[in-house]
Amino acid sequence: MGEGIALTVSYDGSSFHGFARQEGLPTVQGILESALATVLRAEIRTTGAGRTDTGVHARAQVVSFEVEGLLSDLDSLVRSLNALCASEGVAIREARRAVPGFSARFDASSREYRYCLATGATPPVFMSRYAWWVRKPLDLKAMQESGVMLIGEHDFASFCVARSAEGKSTVRALEVVEVDRQTLLGEECVIIRLIGDAFLHSMVRIVVGSLVEVGIGKREPSWLAEALSAKTRRAAGPTAPSHGLALWNVTYPESCWVDPV
Amino acid sequence: MGEGIALTVSYDGSSFHGFARQEGLPTVQGILESALATVLRAEIRTTGAGRTDTGVHARAQVVSFEVEGLLSDLDSLVRSLNALCASEGVAIREARRAVPGFSARFDASSREYRYCLATGATPPVFMSRYAWWVRKPLDLKAMQESGVMLIGEHDFASFCVARSAEGKSTVRALEVVEVDRQTLLGEECVIIRLIGDAFLHSMVRIVVGSLVEVGIGKREPSWLAEALSAKTRRAAGPTAPSHGLALWNVTYPESCWVDPV
Repeated sequence: MGEGIALTVSYDGSSFHGFARQEGLPTVQGILESALATVLRAEIRTTGAGRTDTGVHARAQVVSFEVEGLLSDLDSLVRSLNALCASEGVAIREARRAVPGFSARFDASSREYRYCLATGATPPVFMSRYAWWVRKPLDLKAMQESGVMLIGEHDFASFCVARSAEGKSTVRALEVVEVDRQTLLGEECVIIRLIGDAFLHSMVRIVVGSLVEVGIGKREPSWLAEALSAKTRRAAGPTAPSHGLALWNVTYPESCWVDPV
Repeated sequence: MGEGIALTVSYDGSSFHGFARQEGLPTVQGILESALATVLRAEIRTTGAGRTDTGVHARAQVVSFEVEGLLSDLDSLVRSLNALCASEGVAIREARRAVPGFSARFDASSREYRYCLATGATPPVFMSRYAWWVRKPLDLKAMQESGVMLIGEHDFASFCVARSAEGKSTVRALEVVEVDRQTLLGEECVIIRLIGDAFLHSMVRIVVGSLVEVGIGKREPSWLAEALSAKTRRAAGPTAPSHGLALWNVTYPESCWVDPV
């Protein structure tokens, strides 16, 4: 009888061709599976909560896998994996025991993404790899007013890569859309925080690209509600660049864990 | 009749062999002087407020130079310099008019440095280039208690590279030593903030290395006062690595500026 394991993983997306394994390219999943093979002496197939694209970061991606038998010491697993992965820019924050059959992807109850805009008059330095530099002043009140219109269960077809949605439901539920100023590493930023049950391909980046159109005054706040009802990709704004985006947090029902906190 | 100009400059020290110009090596001063030569069509010699070592960052380094005649448009100077320097990881935040003969180095009345320690149980990812990962738990109260003993005017001979001080005064005045927890880019950090009139070579890094010895319990807080009175480099702790350090701010008397704010 085996068990499920969930790893919480951070990485700087700048160094990877995304999360998902691709033959011959540096990916987060590729590095993790190779480290797991070394430590556990077995071929391990993993599942990620979110398939982050090239350049997208993660503060707390969750990655699941199954092992035969029971792993005796999860702290030592974390230490061994970090020893192998640290130089690659991947850090394992935690390992938890989950119920057999646990999937980081299908069992997730909510996901939080954060998008960082750099808003200084001159180019960001310390945030340059983690923030999209928007050179125009942003009206945060308008962005927040507009973002709220997306909260709730909606068909987000306008906010996803068109061909990725073919034949699949594009209905998702957004719980939180928040826009806030923050000074990060001494640089002026605006953080857009989205929490939802699940996200379509490029959904966060298209929402952010649309909110920025509102923020710079190119569109009225109410335009976002129209874009949503249109249910076609061309109704929404441009896709914001990947390097401003981070998968921030993923939550699961308590029933997924073998050792509840 | 010429004028003095002060540039406020940010850079990520990871990319440079320090601030000071060195033939054939990438340095901040080298990049700035080359950009100034292009924009102003003249050979310009600059002076930095602090000669940051290889790997040390700056949020607000101040760099001065003199020009013949008067520069008509400082905003356009900033834009042109940023267009040339942004891809090199150097950003010019501001240009100000100063009195003739102004020196960013000799006219500075105070300098602030911040040192960042990463204190999570697992390796930092987003802060890895800006923080020294200290793997042991830190007693912040002991560090703060110890740091306060350095405040005031003292001979800091114990806290500088021995040969750099030969024949020169090693008396400096420290105004502020503060130790605080902060979450930066989602990672647990401790920031050590030092403000003083001027700093000796490697002084901040030796103070930080000593405070960490206290923080991990290897030394008592009172040891720092003993190290100070000993007036010899070997009495203090090790030199903390350069990548955790940033020159944060430099202040000048109002009388230095031609256009006071």
